[in-house]
Amino acid sequence: MAEAVETMDGWYCLHDFRVMDWTSWKLASEENRQAAIEEFQNWMSDMEQVEEANNGSQLVYKIIGHKADIMFMILRPTMDELQEIETAFDKTKIASFMTKSFSYLSVVELSKYMSKPGVDIEHKPEVQARLKPILPRWDYMCFYPMDKRRMNDDNWYSLEKDARSKLMYEHSKTGRKYAGQIKQIITGSFGFDDWEWGVTLFAHDPLPIKKLVYEMRFDEVSARYGEFGDFYFGNILEKDAAANYFHI
Amino acid sequence: MAEAVETMDGWYCLHDFRVMDWTSWKLASEENRQAAIEEFQNWMSDMEQVEEANNGSQLVYKIIGHKADIMFMILRPTMDELQEIETAFDKTKIASFMTKSFSYLSVVELSKYMSKPGVDIEHKPEVQARLKPILPRWDYMCFYPMDKRRMNDDNWYSLEKDARSKLMYEHSKTGRKYAGQIKQIITGSFGFDDWEWGVTLFAHDPLPIKKLVYEMRFDEVSARYGEFGDFYFGNILEKDAAANYFHI
Amino acid sequence: MAEAVETMDGWYCLHDFRVMDWTSWKLASEENRQAAIEEFQNWMSDMEQVEEANNGSQLVYKIIGHKADIMFMILRPTMDELQEIETAFDKTKIASFMTKSFSYLSVVELSKYMSKPGVDIEHKPEVQARLKPILPRWDYMCFYPMDKRRMNDDNWYSLEKDARSKLMYEHSKTGRKYAGQIKQIITGSFGFDDWEWGVTLFAHDPLPIKKLVYEMRFDEVSARYGEFGDFYFGNILEKDAAANYFHI
Amino acid sequence: MAEAVETMDGWYCLHDFRVMDWTSWKLASEENRQAAIEEFQNWMSDMEQVEEANNGSQLVYKIIGHKADIMFMILRPTMDELQEIETAFDKTKIASFMTKSFSYLSVVELSKYMSKPGVDIEHKPEVQARLKPILPRWDYMCFYPMDKRRMNDDNWYSLEKDARSKLMYEHSKTGRKYAGQIKQIITGSFGFDDWEWGVTLFAHDPLPIKKLVYEMRFDEVSARYGEFGDFYFGNILEKDAAANYFHI
Amino acid sequence: MAEAVETMDGWYCLHDFRVMDWTSWKLASEENRQAAIEEFQNWMSDMEQVEEANNGSQLVYKIIGHKADIMFMILRPTMDELQEIETAFDKTKIASFMTKSFSYLSVVELSKYMSKPGVDIEHKPEVQARLKPILPRWDYMCFYPMDKRRMNDDNWYSLEKDARSKLMYEHSKTGRKYAGQIKQIITGSFGFDDWEWGVTLFAHDPLPIKKLVYEMRFDEVSARYGEFGDFYFGNILEKDAAANYFHI
Repeated sequence: MAEAVETMDGWYCLHDFRVMDWTSWKLASEENRQAAIEEFQNWMSDMEQVEEANNGSQLVYKIIGHKADIMFMILRPTMDELQEIETAFDKTKIASFMTKSFSYLSVVELSKYMSKPGVDIEHKPEVQARLKPILPRWDYMCFYPMDKRRMNDDNWYSLEKDARSKLMYEHSKTGRKYAGQIKQIITGSFGFDDWEWGVTLFAHDPLPIKKLVYEMRFDEVSARYGEFGDFYFGNILEKDAAANYFHI
Repeated sequence: MAEAVETMDGWYCLHDFRVMDWTSWKLASEENRQAAIEEFQNWMSDMEQVEEANNGSQLVYKIIGHKADIMFMILRPTMDELQEIETAFDKTKIASFMTKSFSYLSVVELSKYMSKPGVDIEHKPEVQARLKPILPRWDYMCFYPMDKRRMNDDNWYSLEKDARSKLMYEHSKTGRKYAGQIKQIITGSFGFDDWEWGVTLFAHDPLPIKKLVYEMRFDEVSARYGEFGDFYFGNILEKDAAANYFHI
Repeated sequence: MAEAVETMDGWYCLHDFRVMDWTSWKLASEENRQAAIEEFQNWMSDMEQVEEANNGSQLVYKIIGHKADIMFMILRPTMDELQEIETAFDKTKIASFMTKSFSYLSVVELSKYMSKPGVDIEHKPEVQARLKPILPRWDYMCFYPMDKRRMNDDNWYSLEKDARSKLMYEHSKTGRKYAGQIKQIITGSFGFDDWEWGVTLFAHDPLPIKKLVYEMRFDEVSARYGEFGDFYFGNILEKDAAANYFHI
Repeated sequence: MAEAVETMDGWYCLHDFRVMDWTSWKLASEENRQAAIEEFQNWMSDMEQVEEANNGSQLVYKIIGHKADIMFMILRPTMDELQEIETAFDKTKIASFMTKSFSYLSVVELSKYMSKPGVDIEHKPEVQARLKPILPRWDYMCFYPMDKRRMNDDNWYSLEKDARSKLMYEHSKTGRKYAGQIKQIITGSFGFDDWEWGVTLFAHDPLPIKKLVYEMRFDEVSARYGEFGDFYFGNILEKDAAANYFHI
Repeated sequence: MAEAVETMDGWYCLHDFRVMDWTSWKLASEENRQAAIEEFQNWMSDMEQVEEANNGSQLVYKIIGHKADIMFMILRPTMDELQEIETAFDKTKIASFMTKSFSYLSVVELSKYMSKPGVDIEHKPEVQARLKPILPRWDYMCFYPMDKRRMNDDNWYSLEKDARSKLMYEHSKTGRKYAGQIKQIITGSFGFDDWEWGVTLFAHDPLPIKKLVYEMRFDEVSARYGEFGDFYFGNILEKDAAANYFHI
């Protein structure tokens, strides 16, 4: 039986994807649309205050394609806050013009594959900053969930810890080539959602995201052991741009 | 042909997941919403009386994400009662603002892998209490269905009983590490629903749920033989908090 | 190339699953609901006359969970009658408050695995009674479709006839343990529907259904060669109980 | 690399499946229903004139079960005609009471597995008649799409041409047993739709369809290399019977 | 660990599939339909001006079957433009009569499998013209997404670069046979959408598309390593033909 490697866990995370019902929205009165947009911007302002107080972080992206129009990525210290934020948004005016198409519940996670035995890294400030991150306001975002494969001879969870550590180390070298170009947040979802991990990538330019995901697929850890869910790609929606985005 | 191991079976169990149609709910009159909430709370009170009489047990959770908003987990001595409760709820006012997104029908089950031959454990009071459990009112709940794999060389149902017992025993040791932190109820669903078992985990803190599910994946019984369905995670909804939850 | 074993085929069979739209039903007038229920009960009476004339058989079950509310299982000598019954029901008042969620088209089937060469068993009265069965009005029903697996080394259709016969014989011994407790009807659906067979189990008590399906999974024919679809479980709905079931 | 075997291709083919919204249809006025039925019958008459001029062929079937109510199978010399017929039907009155649940786009195809090298069979009249067939007005129809498997050791497209020819020849012998009972049309859909081929079977009696599909599953070409999609089964709907079928 | 081969990337690409709600469209007033069609044609004119300025390219196809009615294929230098075009179209009048059924986000891609080391081909004008292509206005279009397989012994991403190059070279020879008959555009979607690549084929005649896709399936790179998504096939819709297409 292979030995599990401990994880360090930080803020809880909800990715919340919504499809806009543009047909109903166009049928609403200009007055109702205006009130809904203002309430939405106030909701964003309230969330920004939480972020300023370092009690969480969040971003809104415009997703391209049919799978969603808007994605909220919300980090908070407790699951209760995530549930309350989701329900509070459901009760807003603009949510009546949206349907939920996907969501992902997880917790910011760092593995201890790279840590030395006997050294407590979890309480170092730089590790804590990565576990409770203020999200970068970068232009582009990619999200996908993933599993480690358990299929015939390619069974991650039957590999010994050393073999897994070596594969993860090789994998991290591919990632490091994109330092500065891509910011990656790994969230774990065992027991919280349908896949084992969520991967969120932020970039100033879409191409490095493509090149990173492509190059990593050749890493043995992905080639033999990676199972990937749907990919979501979006452009950032800042509070001030929301009025224009929703304007008919 | 491998030998089947007998099970002990207790109360029947329905997990009933509903998505709230917040758009219609907001369009309803304040008066109609109030009447629907009161009727819902009375329905919860009636169910609580059944529990007090030790004729069943139930809990309500607020599910996070798009897969559901509300989950009822209902235990009763007969299938007829589960069908009647589901239909009775369908006829309530608040159910008109909900759609069913998932459900799971099963029966509380204990396996006899660990029991000694010739010893009747089924009629011991502590076993009966586990077969007909009063559900704990713990803050967090995780539900997922699962199968034992039958794929090429990884075929659970072709393993000899001794091999299966050994794997189950190793698995139980992982679970025991979380005693006090997590309460687990296994329900069997052969012939009742699409997967073979349902797993419901209760906890005071979400993290032990994640750590348990993660650590167990390395157990050989999960690594090689576990197939998992969707995971649902929620926060408890007590009767007194229902008015606030549904308040617009 | 493995030799196919002939089948004996009896009445055609439609399993027709419908979800009740309780929200619309509650919005209908008491008068319209009453008229719909009466028409439904008359429709059941007409079908019962067909059964009394031994020209077919049928049962109605209340399915538990989100997959369906009502299931009709209808046996008739011709496919034309099944199509006509489905369309006639679609035109009834109560069908306007239901949507079709699943269905299964097949024909009652007995295999000749157990028959001796040169002996005509098909025209024996007891075999004809099994091919054109009057369905038992037992309280509980389980339905699931299934395939025989064709995956790598586990390929049923590549096995020689003798090997298949031996596996089917072992399997039948498991079934015979439940004689009296469970009545099983096998229907074949090659060319008629998505799976190869449908299995319908009737019982006075739900537990033997669970125990039978569980125990059979260890039979080599299921462990290595069985692929199973969704499982539906329900309680019988008698004509006289219909008014109460639909009453708001 | 295995050598591809050429195909001969005839008329393009659209299988178009629609679900009837009986609830809306019942709510329509008798006058509107009558106008819609007449327009539908005129549409069928227009198509029949195309068939009489030998510029195509078509049939309408009543599909049993929840997957569809009506299926059009339409053969025409060009893709443009298929697109125009689909859109023209979408604009009819009765189409407003139907939704599309499935469709299949392909072209009538004969393989050259059985043809001798150097002999041009494509331009023989009997081959042309099979490539541009007038569909038989037989009572029962079965449609299913299929792929040839590419899975581990069972990879059709890696087999040498001789091995494939031998398997196809064995397969054709099973089919020939049902000559006169079943008429089969194979349509190819590489680049046109999700599966590789569509199979349409016509019969005067449903049972030979079941027996053929069952018996063929033991042919090595199906047992090891066949992957099958959903099966649709229906009874023919003649123009004169349409009024009765749609009558409320 | 196998070495990744670099790609050259050009314009971003959105395939946007919409289903027409013909029932609502027929219910709209002639005046509203006319205004919607005119706005749609103006939108196409605006896009054509972008193409004339060589700042992008686009085409509209009428998809046959239930999966979509209309497909937009849009190429632009930035992701922002694709998002803006999608949202701008969502706000048009005619979009209120359509729903999104599928979409695909990618970037025009050329691999460097065939390029010689040390030679910069990316900046050659003919390569730039292929990376930023003006789409051909050919009558027929086929789109499908695909992955390279990672399954047991058939794992593309574990193959050495030389082995992959050889397989790609063989594959390219099949494609070259169809030069002049078929124009192919490969778009990469790692990190952008659910599959790894999108393939768009244009032709003057549908048959070469079928023959190419069929013949390629025997190439080892497809037979052993190709995984294919759904196939969409359509006829071109020119701006001037739009009024007729939408006319009731």
